[in-house]
Amino acid sequence: MDSFRVRTDLALEARENIEIDAENLHGVQIFETYDEKSEVRITKVVIETKNGSKVMGKPIGTYVTLEAPAMIEPDENYHKEISMALAEQIREIIPGLNHEQSILVIGLGNRDVTPDALGPNVVDNLIVTRHMVKEYGKAAFNNEEIHVVSGIVPGVMAKTGMEAAEITQGIIDQTKPDVVIVIDALAARSTRRLNRTIQITDTGIHPGSGVGNHRNALTEENLGVPVIAIGVPTVVDAATIVGDAVDKALKGKVNDHIEIREEMLNSLGELRNMYVTGKDVDFEIKQISHIVCDAINKALDLSY
Amino acid sequence: MDSFRVRTDLALEARENIEIDAENLHGVQIFETYDEKSEVRITKVVIETKNGSKVMGKPIGTYVTLEAPAMIEPDENYHKEISMALAEQIREIIPGLNHEQSILVIGLGNRDVTPDALGPNVVDNLIVTRHMVKEYGKAAFNNEEIHVVSGIVPGVMAKTGMEAAEITQGIIDQTKPDVVIVIDALAARSTRRLNRTIQITDTGIHPGSGVGNHRNALTEENLGVPVIAIGVPTVVDAATIVGDAVDKALKGKVNDHIEIREEMLNSLGELRNMYVTGKDVDFEIKQISHIVCDAINKALDLSY
Amino acid sequence: MDSFRVRTDLALEARENIEIDAENLHGVQIFETYDEKSEVRITKVVIETKNGSKVMGKPIGTYVTLEAPAMIEPDENYHKEISMALAEQIREIIPGLNHEQSILVIGLGNRDVTPDALGPNVVDNLIVTRHMVKEYGKAAFNNEEIHVVSGIVPGVMAKTGMEAAEITQGIIDQTKPDVVIVIDALAARSTRRLNRTIQITDTGIHPGSGVGNHRNALTEENLGVPVIAIGVPTVVDAATIVGDAVDKALKGKVNDHIEIREEMLNSLGELRNMYVTGKDVDFEIKQISHIVCDAINKALDLSY
Amino acid sequence: MDSFRVRTDLALEARENIEIDAENLHGVQIFETYDEKSEVRITKVVIETKNGSKVMGKPIGTYVTLEAPAMIEPDENYHKEISMALAEQIREIIPGLNHEQSILVIGLGNRDVTPDALGPNVVDNLIVTRHMVKEYGKAAFNNEEIHVVSGIVPGVMAKTGMEAAEITQGIIDQTKPDVVIVIDALAARSTRRLNRTIQITDTGIHPGSGVGNHRNALTEENLGVPVIAIGVPTVVDAATIVGDAVDKALKGKVNDHIEIREEMLNSLGELRNMYVTGKDVDFEIKQISHIVCDAINKALDLSY
Repeated sequence: MDSFRVRTDLALEARENIEIDAENLHGVQIFETYDEKSEVRITKVVIETKNGSKVMGKPIGTYVTLEAPAMIEPDENYHKEISMALAEQIREIIPGLNHEQSILVIGLGNRDVTPDALGPNVVDNLIVTRHMVKEYGKAAFNNEEIHVVSGIVPGVMAKTGMEAAEITQGIIDQTKPDVVIVIDALAARSTRRLNRTIQITDTGIHPGSGVGNHRNALTEENLGVPVIAIGVPTVVDAATIVGDAVDKALKGKVNDHIEIREEMLNSLGELRNMYVTGKDVDFEIKQISHIVCDAINKALDLSY
Repeated sequence: MDSFRVRTDLALEARENIEIDAENLHGVQIFETYDEKSEVRITKVVIETKNGSKVMGKPIGTYVTLEAPAMIEPDENYHKEISMALAEQIREIIPGLNHEQSILVIGLGNRDVTPDALGPNVVDNLIVTRHMVKEYGKAAFNNEEIHVVSGIVPGVMAKTGMEAAEITQGIIDQTKPDVVIVIDALAARSTRRLNRTIQITDTGIHPGSGVGNHRNALTEENLGVPVIAIGVPTVVDAATIVGDAVDKALKGKVNDHIEIREEMLNSLGELRNMYVTGKDVDFEIKQISHIVCDAINKALDLSY
Repeated sequence: MDSFRVRTDLALEARENIEIDAENLHGVQIFETYDEKSEVRITKVVIETKNGSKVMGKPIGTYVTLEAPAMIEPDENYHKEISMALAEQIREIIPGLNHEQSILVIGLGNRDVTPDALGPNVVDNLIVTRHMVKEYGKAAFNNEEIHVVSGIVPGVMAKTGMEAAEITQGIIDQTKPDVVIVIDALAARSTRRLNRTIQITDTGIHPGSGVGNHRNALTEENLGVPVIAIGVPTVVDAATIVGDAVDKALKGKVNDHIEIREEMLNSLGELRNMYVTGKDVDFEIKQISHIVCDAINKALDLSY
Repeated sequence: MDSFRVRTDLALEARENIEIDAENLHGVQIFETYDEKSEVRITKVVIETKNGSKVMGKPIGTYVTLEAPAMIEPDENYHKEISMALAEQIREIIPGLNHEQSILVIGLGNRDVTPDALGPNVVDNLIVTRHMVKEYGKAAFNNEEIHVVSGIVPGVMAKTGMEAAEITQGIIDQTKPDVVIVIDALAARSTRRLNRTIQITDTGIHPGSGVGNHRNALTEENLGVPVIAIGVPTVVDAATIVGDAVDKALKGKVNDHIEIREEMLNSLGELRNMYVTGKDVDFEIKQISHIVCDAINKALDLSY
């Protein structure tokens, strides 16, 4: 995508928001699991009705967040555990995986901007099977059941002149997958979410969910096939982080707090479309790409 | 594409083939120009009739070869001259460039294999306008006439699971360009052609014209829009080079020359799909990519 | 370097600081030129005496800042003008360029982190001559005078285990250059300086001038040869930008402004070693790398 | 290195050469092991005396070849087995690994030429410890014994203007490692050796062992520390492959076989410094880089 999308982490915010009385919230279910050994916490929010959708401010669907505090620690065993937990969530959320499916994986993002290269990196290392199945049929895989997997990196509009959604729609019309998985780097609203959460949803990628990306919808409504979106915050939105800092500093200290904040944000307009990232971002992206790629290969039972 | 295509250089072979009596060849016209200052030689073969097509063994259409012996010499002025000559040929061969056209540029090839990265490198540096025109209209360009240019790198089947033709067709259906330009690295049949010729044709890329690429047709018949193909030999086909060497060595020396050659080629089966390249191939690809990219930008009047 | 260095832009701050009475400042000279056509402004601060050094808080030496507001506008002609202006400044600041010199160019930075890849990109595209001169002597260059140029990308300590200064010292001892030019990406203190200024100094790169780089001195004192440092701010230091935003918001509104700010910065400790960058950073780095590389090639009279 | 070195695979040739009567060869010992499960064959040739050196045409030292026919099959388990076997050989051949050593790993090669990027890829993914040990001492590693590991990619002379040996010598003088490990891509003499053998020797890299690299010696004599060289043939030397093909075709068929061959090789002079490679070379290099990198990390007990 042309810029990082600031996506509300619905699941985490639902969990953290003490004003939501989960048991009394009609049309919304919240589940939470925590594995002590791997330290992986999974929060799932399922919005089932229009009422639930209105209250939560999000479309009907499933929203999962996997939190792994040490996601970027270079520990191979820990990564395997995170991959396995993520693989399980992916398997659960993709419809119809119990029989052979045709799956198109889209790696959104700009491969030449390090923190935005997550999608491309994952797709570059994915195990694709579609060409082998087309050429040799099941014989290529010992006549076992196999998902027909393909992958593409559509690039960003500034370099292609086209929306990822246009490219994706065109490919879907030609190759007719049953499901589309989209992988994307996100902008978190705080450093607390950075490099430690993975968001999965079956509601795809909605317009307006990103900074400046109001046109770029990759949803079942638009594309005609279910769209599973996997997103990882790899940067923090600069305007948000500055605004929050000012809020914190001003809270309770001044009366016209809100006006001061607005006034300041206006004068800091140049922070729009800017992101905060650390110096080891190349290492972080490598780690996270491996975890997500392994998880997808596992979820789709792909191996060489 | 999944491997380099060994494309007969029709234009050069027409020029070099003393058995073709050009003036008497019905349905085929051959033109040749040589610029002494730039040392650029342009040979154009136009096959106009079915008869000409049968004799030449190629579809009806135009085949241009630009020869520049010092193409990879790192001389910026010389590169400008080659770009200008190439831009002129591109302008002539694309239908309808006198009015605004919508043009999709496809960079075939594997960006991770140095000699096959020509297409991706060219498209990566192309000036695209389509997103600006869609967003702002002509106002973005001083209300002047402007071609609507987009670009894509489809990747290779081994990594995407899809044929470049499928991806291209899908994108064409979505964005409806008037013309498609395809850029591709080729395998030459001899080191004499390497890094010094650029082939341009309006017959697109035909099946069977490449090593192992018999399915991958990017032609007007398949895609529904005119396809201009620009190819540059960046490697030499290994089996060809070995076969030719043996031919040369055996010619006139042995009787059963042909059988020996066949016998040898069989035992050298592992040379199939292998290519000969030099150690400075990264430098060569960079030079050639710049020349081709500049030429396209010039031909389409693209500038920032 | 392991992280971006936040370098005080001495020249600009001298110009902007109304408390410095330039004419009365002993031991410091300030020069300023502005070219209307190219819109390039050059500010030069020369600290000549210990007194000047103490007042300015910087070592004796020359500090030049070139400002070009439209540096990242993709305009080739404008880039040529900036390169020429920069080339002139480089020529002036390198000692002894009127006769043949041996010059080692160091591209500091991490090539895998987009905004930190400036140094590596410049050195990758530099015209090096040392191997040709060693092999063929002046005959390779028409027996004309030629500078002996070499280049290296030392990488970052997190990936090599070694300081750039150690690697550089080792290479200097072996190849004995007369001058070293170091190129580095910097962290600006505000978005106003981003992608529009180039800083050149003959005082090298001092310890403590960077975030977390207090050991990494590349100076004449350490290395035994003059060190010219060329730096371009490509990111903004996150802690600085947040602190400044809070300052601006609080100024005049609260009494305990300073304590609030400090308190806030402490709680935002995670912003240390974090940087703000835009989404088009790949495009910006490409533009700036070309400008700096062209300028060095020009300054050293290097051409193919 | 500036081009692939065609290194005689001493170990394999010793094994294959029926004219060598191993038991009677004074001053040379040949060992061979074969593991049925992993299909890895290890051949070790130890030249112990001047006589042995003269007969074998190689310096005194140890030469190991590990053959793994399915090295580039994308099978993770198989790769683990090859890595472990290679790790064992590396551990045996590096002097003094039973106590803490300081080890500098050099990744020779051009990272921008796919088949020559083996060295750089391995070093890019190596676990380096030197900076941590310097900063925190053993405390960083639970006070356990740890090798002090550093790594560098010197680049190629065409781009740096300097020999890898010069850069390496400079770094050795500064950081004083106990041992140097050099990783390099090689040119095999036949496709049979391609992507299936790994050569390890403690005689370093000798001048003249490569195409056009007669100056570039990385040996204990030159550098003052033991040099372990690990090489993997990733390309085939073009001149050799053509010459061998002609030999095979001509053998027994013509009298003046040798003259014909020479005559032909002269006219194929352009094949000098050219190499034969396959279209999946990016995938192959990735696989081999992982195997070698894992092996080194294992051999040096490196883990995060």
